[in-house]
Amino acid sequence: MASKMAGTESQILPQSAIRNPQSAIQNLRSEICVPRLKKFYLWRKISNVKKILVIGAGRSSSSLVKYLLDNAEAQDWKVTLADRDLALAESKLNGNERGEALLFEADNHLRRKELIEECDLVISMLPASMHMMVAADAIELGKNLITPSYVSPEMKELNDEARRKGVLLLNEMGVDPGIDHMSAMRVIDEIKSKGGKLIRFESFTGGLIAPQSDDNPWHYKFTWNPRNVIMAGMGGTAQYIQNHNLKYIPIHKIFERYKEIEIEGYGVFEGYANRDSLSYRSVYGLEDVPTIYRGTLRGQGYCKAWNVFVQLGMTTEDFEVESKNMTWRDFINSYLQYDPELPVEGKIQNYLNLDQETMDLLKWTGIFDSTKIGVDSATPAALLQLLLEDKWKLKEDDKDMIVMWHRFDYELDGQEHQVQSSMVAIGEDHTYTAMSNTVGLPMGIAAKMILNGEMKLTGVQMPILPEVYEPILDELTKFDIQFVEKTIH
Amino acid sequence: MASKMAGTESQILPQSAIRNPQSAIQNLRSEICVPRLKKFYLWRKISNVKKILVIGAGRSSSSLVKYLLDNAEAQDWKVTLADRDLALAESKLNGNERGEALLFEADNHLRRKELIEECDLVISMLPASMHMMVAADAIELGKNLITPSYVSPEMKELNDEARRKGVLLLNEMGVDPGIDHMSAMRVIDEIKSKGGKLIRFESFTGGLIAPQSDDNPWHYKFTWNPRNVIMAGMGGTAQYIQNHNLKYIPIHKIFERYKEIEIEGYGVFEGYANRDSLSYRSVYGLEDVPTIYRGTLRGQGYCKAWNVFVQLGMTTEDFEVESKNMTWRDFINSYLQYDPELPVEGKIQNYLNLDQETMDLLKWTGIFDSTKIGVDSATPAALLQLLLEDKWKLKEDDKDMIVMWHRFDYELDGQEHQVQSSMVAIGEDHTYTAMSNTVGLPMGIAAKMILNGEMKLTGVQMPILPEVYEPILDELTKFDIQFVEKTIH
Repeated sequence: MASKMAGTESQILPQSAIRNPQSAIQNLRSEICVPRLKKFYLWRKISNVKKILVIGAGRSSSSLVKYLLDNAEAQDWKVTLADRDLALAESKLNGNERGEALLFEADNHLRRKELIEECDLVISMLPASMHMMVAADAIELGKNLITPSYVSPEMKELNDEARRKGVLLLNEMGVDPGIDHMSAMRVIDEIKSKGGKLIRFESFTGGLIAPQSDDNPWHYKFTWNPRNVIMAGMGGTAQYIQNHNLKYIPIHKIFERYKEIEIEGYGVFEGYANRDSLSYRSVYGLEDVPTIYRGTLRGQGYCKAWNVFVQLGMTTEDFEVESKNMTWRDFINSYLQYDPELPVEGKIQNYLNLDQETMDLLKWTGIFDSTKIGVDSATPAALLQLLLEDKWKLKEDDKDMIVMWHRFDYELDGQEHQVQSSMVAIGEDHTYTAMSNTVGLPMGIAAKMILNGEMKLTGVQMPILPEVYEPILDELTKFDIQFVEKTIH
Repeated sequence: MASKMAGTESQILPQSAIRNPQSAIQNLRSEICVPRLKKFYLWRKISNVKKILVIGAGRSSSSLVKYLLDNAEAQDWKVTLADRDLALAESKLNGNERGEALLFEADNHLRRKELIEECDLVISMLPASMHMMVAADAIELGKNLITPSYVSPEMKELNDEARRKGVLLLNEMGVDPGIDHMSAMRVIDEIKSKGGKLIRFESFTGGLIAPQSDDNPWHYKFTWNPRNVIMAGMGGTAQYIQNHNLKYIPIHKIFERYKEIEIEGYGVFEGYANRDSLSYRSVYGLEDVPTIYRGTLRGQGYCKAWNVFVQLGMTTEDFEVESKNMTWRDFINSYLQYDPELPVEGKIQNYLNLDQETMDLLKWTGIFDSTKIGVDSATPAALLQLLLEDKWKLKEDDKDMIVMWHRFDYELDGQEHQVQSSMVAIGEDHTYTAMSNTVGLPMGIAAKMILNGEMKLTGVQMPILPEVYEPILDELTKFDIQFVEKTIH
């Protein structure tokens, strides 16, 4: 029936129009609009202003927006910052004339398309799960996109279409993921280029408190999302590879099996295993490297003490504690076997065989205090977060710190070599934190490169190519984000 | 508009017919059918035969079907056993003339209704998740239903409707849940009736191997669903109450915090905490009892050795092991830190501080053997199951054993008393196992009571009332399912 119709009408309309009359009408419309578009294009070319659309004005956008505005005059940019909180967006612009704040709900798809259509480059600072809708529009409208988030399986699937359209979807452009890729790949490529054979790669990153603001025995404060800190390691068995052997650490052993890492000038840190070290084999092209381990950094003493909460069961979310009439002391006691003789402290010390230092860290949190929790019911993890949000709160003058450390062992000319590469970034204040700087600056530099035509990639990408990481790492040094390399024997 | 119509037509049809014309038509139809139905009813009354429909002919139905057929002549019953496997259903009937096997897919709702309509009592031996569709039909058609499974929240919601229709939905009629409720409630009611005040209730059940078939150091074989054994304790934090204090045990501590329980004539068992002891407070009417603990029994040495698998992380399902080229030794080694000096046995002994007895139990499983796993990839739990299915397989003459143990502490006349009540049931063979007997016989006896009008309950019920548990526990003693009570001081 359909083919018959096609047969009779094909004289007048092209085949495609019959298969899809909607799109035929659209094609017709765009032909009509061409003169107007051409005019607009010509105007744009003359004016030369490039429009950058940043969606999301949260904490992590501060340094990115500042970088873009600081460069806006010289580069002839206009920066539109769109957020559901207009006042927040406005506050990030600091009255800069090159900036424009917009009230915008990211799931308003008509408005979203309109905004993306108008710009030359989109930067999505939305929660990771929301990048996909921006990416779909970006491809459709032929605009390049930058995000700081991991390439999701759905994002990966856009690769072919993005390439066809000549669009770049540049992901993992923050600090972790982001600077970790760039700084590691630079050393890995260097080793390869001189004929070395990588035999071990370890990489650790931590969002911590700066030494000058470190005034508690945990050497830790919440500098970012507290929930992520409480749930660290709870996502599943950690996997890595050592001497070609797959190694697994279940969640209740992750904080027990930490490694000590020394960074000159900053002392000793503890690193616990991240869930996924294996996927870096293919991403970094390290399929034959015998040892690959990725982890998270904490201050000294942290892992042993945090392990107490894990061992007790306080980091779970599988049930709700009836906490209405409980004190913090009752809460911890509910994880300890009944004993009519011993106090709570004695029971926990016997149960988990704790040393005095660990006991001191626990005591400092207030978990042994006989004060009411003040919440009717919540999961153990939520209660623990409640307790620590009070203790690990940043003071007004506190500064955060990002620490990154890589270790590369390689063989060259029959000899084993080791290089360690580390970076410590200290935050400026509560707005331009180390976290915001290390996330936002690489994104800003990448934006500049794309708009200046210095990055000609298309498809779904992450910063692992020299043409991407070299200029970005170079410019980051101007902001004191700098790697120090150390050669061991 | 609707009310206008109701106004004009209300002279001819009753209000309800206008509100629900469908049901009015149905009512009309049933009036027409009455003479036929009455005739059928009269025939049924004369013949007196009662039809029992058993849905599901799996392992747990064997003793139930045998009990029903053994009583069929004396009680004038007809037993229909419906299953998707006709040969299996037929094999359970042993050629008994009172039995009938039917090929039946439980989700065929027309056929299901037809079968339920024809019978006087339904017994659902389907997987727990499938009881609900049978229950809905049973209510609609006014038939009583028995299941061996826990009352699900959805089942609970049927209570009011079942009561209105005068239908009994009797659940938790097996061994655990089932005999555990009945035997505990008998002692609890006894203590209450003489004015005692219960201060502690503990209850443990285990599906084990009979002493005469116990020929391995774990004192364990798979007598039931292996997966449930592998995943034991992995469902979430165990909760109980001790001296009025809520107590929590996270999954990685459950097998470490076992209790020892001695049963005269059978030696010492180990009991680990079940996930949920708290819900029994309301079910048994024990809201003010300071200590309530429910658990599962295993043989001596089991918990310590099983805890090794838990500690290593081998009972998880959160990722797939690339096991293609692995031996069992490689598998266990993947949970141990790299050490160029020590063998696997030495590493695990140091890591988890294991005694020789535990090491012997581990060695016996073959987990240290250098034989290929022979599976491309699977979760750790699935691999562990594969290993143990081979080792914990029942031999032809092996008999299983169900062990149940309760402890009741109470105050009476200013004095503390303790009663222990225990039951050990040994299986007859691979068909009439202790598990099949202890699940099926209470259900069969309940069926008899319902059909003889000795159980007049309606709504959603479980066996916690004396009128239910007394006759059932009495008759169970004829099958050697008998509780021995022991008074301590």
